[in-house]
Amino acid sequence: MAFFELQPGLQLALWPRQSIAHDSGIPVGPSSSTEFTLGHNVSSKEEVDAVMEQAGNVGARIVKQAHDTFWGGYAGYFEDPDRHLWEVVWSPDVQVQE
Amino acid sequence: MAFFELQPGLQLALWPRQSIAHDSGIPVGPSSSTEFTLGHNVSSKEEVDAVMEQAGNVGARIVKQAHDTFWGGYAGYFEDPDRHLWEVVWSPDVQVQE
Repeated sequence: MAFFELQPGLQLALWPRQSIAHDSGIPVGPSSSTEFTLGHNVSSKEEVDAVMEQAGNVGARIVKQAHDTFWGGYAGYFEDPDRHLWEVVWSPDVQVQE
Repeated sequence: MAFFELQPGLQLALWPRQSIAHDSGIPVGPSSSTEFTLGHNVSSKEEVDAVMEQAGNVGARIVKQAHDTFWGGYAGYFEDPDRHLWEVVWSPDVQVQE
């Protein structure tokens, strides 16, 4: 497992689903790619393309090719080998800190 | 939807599952109580009992009665009406800021 301090008093903890099931006494439920996405903001459309290409080259499944979005951004989706869904996104309204 | 600023450059966004499905082009997957739990740390065993009772009184389903845990704490689980799983927990190692 892994713990991330987010704010004072607020922590994100990652556990195996089996641990949550065991601890709570609820059977392991079905996994779903639409439960959770990891959004990765980058600085430009070109960087979106570069990250998507890099992900594809190392075994990610391209779910949605990068494209101009209806809200004025540019984004694509891929699934990593554990079926976690990632969005790689450039937004004209988000200043990415390098 | 709702946005939570966690740290500079790190944000938690909550979306309807249908929105993630629509945006990514992946069909809505099955929901699961073991995907995600919300842990609520309190200051004492008595407060665990009080929160569990309060939740039960307003319609939560008690999944696991509060009990002494193997790691020296005290915790219980309930499901809210949207089937989100909550753990109410007292830990001897966690100082809760009121």
